Amino acid sequence: MNGADRLCDALLVNGIDVCFANPGTSEMHFVAALDHKPELRCILGLQENVVTGAADGYARMADRPAATLLHLGPGLANGLANIHNARRARTPMVNIVGNHATYHRKYEAPLSSDVEGVARPMSDWVASLESAAEISAGVNAAVAAAASLPGVATLILPADTAWEEVAPADPVPATIPAPPGGDPAAISGILEAIEDGLKVALLLDGAALRAGPLETAGRIAAHCGVRLLTPTSVARIERGAGRVAPDRIPYRIEAAEEAMKDVDVLVLVGAQAPVAFFAYPGRPSVPTRPDTRIVLYAAPGADAASALTVLADALGAASAPAPVCVAGLPPRPGDGALTGPDVTAMVARALPENAIVVDESITQGYMFESQSRGCPHHDMLDLTGGAIGIGLPLSIGAAVACPDRKVICLQADGSGLYTVQALWTQAREGLDILTVVFSNGTYATLHGEMKRVGVDAFGVNAGRMLNLDAPRVDWVTLARSFGVDAARATTVAELEPLLETALMRSGPFLIEACI
Amino acid sequence: MNGADRLCDALLVNGIDVCFANPGTSEMHFVAALDHKPELRCILGLQENVVTGAADGYARMADRPAATLLHLGPGLANGLANIHNARRARTPMVNIVGNHATYHRKYEAPLSSDVEGVARPMSDWVASLESAAEISAGVNAAVAAAASLPGVATLILPADTAWEEVAPADPVPATIPAPPGGDPAAISGILEAIEDGLKVALLLDGAALRAGPLETAGRIAAHCGVRLLTPTSVARIERGAGRVAPDRIPYRIEAAEEAMKDVDVLVLVGAQAPVAFFAYPGRPSVPTRPDTRIVLYAAPGADAASALTVLADALGAASAPAPVCVAGLPPRPGDGALTGPDVTAMVARALPENAIVVDESITQGYMFESQSRGCPHHDMLDLTGGAIGIGLPLSIGAAVACPDRKVICLQADGSGLYTVQALWTQAREGLDILTVVFSNGTYATLHGEMKRVGVDAFGVNAGRMLNLDAPRVDWVTLARSFGVDAARATTVAELEPLLETALMRSGPFLIEACI
Repeated sequence: MNGADRLCDALLVNGIDVCFANPGTSEMHFVAALDHKPELRCILGLQENVVTGAADGYARMADRPAATLLHLGPGLANGLANIHNARRARTPMVNIVGNHATYHRKYEAPLSSDVEGVARPMSDWVASLESAAEISAGVNAAVAAAASLPGVATLILPADTAWEEVAPADPVPATIPAPPGGDPAAISGILEAIEDGLKVALLLDGAALRAGPLETAGRIAAHCGVRLLTPTSVARIERGAGRVAPDRIPYRIEAAEEAMKDVDVLVLVGAQAPVAFFAYPGRPSVPTRPDTRIVLYAAPGADAASALTVLADALGAASAPAPVCVAGLPPRPGDGALTGPDVTAMVARALPENAIVVDESITQGYMFESQSRGCPHHDMLDLTGGAIGIGLPLSIGAAVACPDRKVICLQADGSGLYTVQALWTQAREGLDILTVVFSNGTYATLHGEMKRVGVDAFGVNAGRMLNLDAPRVDWVTLARSFGVDAARATTVAELEPLLETALMRSGPFLIEACI
Repeated sequence: MNGADRLCDALLVNGIDVCFANPGTSEMHFVAALDHKPELRCILGLQENVVTGAADGYARMADRPAATLLHLGPGLANGLANIHNARRARTPMVNIVGNHATYHRKYEAPLSSDVEGVARPMSDWVASLESAAEISAGVNAAVAAAASLPGVATLILPADTAWEEVAPADPVPATIPAPPGGDPAAISGILEAIEDGLKVALLLDGAALRAGPLETAGRIAAHCGVRLLTPTSVARIERGAGRVAPDRIPYRIEAAEEAMKDVDVLVLVGAQAPVAFFAYPGRPSVPTRPDTRIVLYAAPGADAASALTVLADALGAASAPAPVCVAGLPPRPGDGALTGPDVTAMVARALPENAIVVDESITQGYMFESQSRGCPHHDMLDLTGGAIGIGLPLSIGAAVACPDRKVICLQADGSGLYTVQALWTQAREGLDILTVVFSNGTYATLHGEMKRVGVDAFGVNAGRMLNLDAPRVDWVTLARSFGVDAARATTVAELEPLLETALMRSGPFLIEACI
């Protein structure tokens, strides 16, 4: 066997049986090896940011990493933005990146670059191997790093590590250390703060956002009078009627400050301390009051479920009733030209049980969070790192991980155009994804940002950088060119039957909602 | 004035009046400042690899840099692959990349990343400023670096350097050092080698590939019996009837070895020593014989024109007649299903005077180089760094730099899909670009590479990673969705009138040549 065969064995023994890929010449031995492993499902993306975003979506829903296979420094570079988002989501991810053969690296060949240097800014763990004999241990180290951080591990394999012969060996899975729980030393302080009548909030993230831990957090909230919050964007949250719904910290720093102004003690449960997306002249970088005490109870990546159970016990809240969302749908919007909130209301009204909602709606879908609290059970996956172009790829990964669940992607048009090639993979794999494009022909969020820097009326240059009209992209035609059927809605009356039909069928479909 | 205003002044005083951009929140003050400078033309790309590839094409044809404006680490990351290609083309390029405000960088905000770390692997020069007062000098240092290397300069501007107030000041242009000429000490050795009857070849690149220097090289070749070669891929070469056409070193290492086997002395004129694109088991990394003497006469980035003049004088070749290409077109292919060489023959037959040919045809356009030697004068721009997805963006930049010349982009389908969003910018700017897509529904180059690793018959996994069928992308519909009119040809008879019509009209058009 050669190093490439050993790579496949090492991935499979670690339960990694999906590989999102766009390989090149330096990865051909890996492709040849994968060809002998039909149990390893290979999914092609037409550009690497599709590949990495799909791997992120897969891991968020499967709770285990997929592999990606990428071509040298430029191929990795193409996928970095969604690797950045995955890193911010604390998604376990294992990137396999080819490199020139060890002895060829010293030349300035056209595709030569510092692959480790490209990987490092967006990866939590990077290693480059020098021989085929190192592959099994290298993969296991990458898997262990990805699963335990959790985070992004990038393993660089020079081409000769793939074609070098090695003695056959039985693959052994990686040892994954158990995540830490909550910090017992923090509990007395939390208890005292509650007893002292201070306003306490739990900021929940990561594993704390699954239904079980949320219910535990809800018991604490009800019993102790503490608030439950989540970051503005989360990797995955289980939602819907009968579940506990924490409040999100708003995106805008002014609104976030308002939301946090009464918080005396902020307890972090699987979360980092909140920080503004951007700095603005004269505005603070963090939304919390300067005197708010921030208590790190469970770090990001911790076992937030057990941490919450321990905390609930310590606070005597273990059997308190959790305040859950009541079943109910938003009212049907009046007929007329569509708005963003109309679209999300209609989606919420039609949401099937067990759907996965991927949200890259940016400015237009902000109402969905409240409109869907009483919907049937569903998961929601957000853009965690602010690097736009994740919605369509993330949907691919979620659909591959959960073939029995409908994926609904709420997609802003400007962001969607970043990785629109993802539609082709949706078509090729026959994935059950409904994409709803909020088609307003503009980077609406930047219009807001321009106002915030004091510019109300634009000239030619600003207008041309912020607007996507002239020409408007025809999303229906665009989707069809990639093999995804599509239709357009400009009114609530047009959208309603389209949603109904789209949710009845299986396979990819796209609705361009003109707003 | 604020730092953003100063940035605009500094760009303009350096003759940089085109800015390819996809800005975000941290660049809003720059956008506001650009809005006051209508003399600075801002061109939006829907994804950053379009932006950077366009800047590359602009500089290759304008012989001066455009600016790019990119959003933080992820925006820069999205554009890295074409920055890599620009670097390999030794294109002068100035990237302006926003970052979080200096005081906000210490937080782990969603979009935080090591922007310098992202820039470094693909940039020749990187700097990050800390205050608005540093902007004029920072831009000048970037421009000087870009123009003199020549190469890629990336300047990172935290958001507060944009909004900080500074005293008005008259902008002063950067001082650009003159490039070095040839190495006089090398000349005697070259002369001796020729006199000793050794087989000498000049490897020409960079500025040596313009018509004048090529003619000088042609005189040397004719007078001294030396061969003229170019690298496999070049940033820009002036070609056509009446011009000197050096031979290209073939892509495949075996063919390159064959081409170089008689070369005793290889003289580098604006070129680096040749190296194989990739390593293969049992094949060498360089095509030259181990005993071939490699003489660095003029380094990459040198003033190759004056270096060739000096060399021609020293060799007594200054007035020798240069062997030039004779006017003549390839024969019309027979009717029937299209092949790659049919398409390039038809393009060569129709090529208008002064066209700019952008070549990202990969496997399918290999015949164009020989078919077009007798065509009217034209420039040809290649994929220099092997990172696919440059053809459509490069065409944008070339068309912006040369609005009076027709740009013809020979585009492989798999590569074109990487940055297909570029079609929208072609439509918005009304650029005079004819794109000819070689639509074969496969990564044909990788089929060849699989054979070279010993795999002749593929299984499911390899087939799914190397083929783009199921579904086939409909390029005609795809182009139209972005506002570019398009048509399809499946035979020579269909292609002929389409080319004729497309070359008569102005503005973007796309032909899907099904081969």
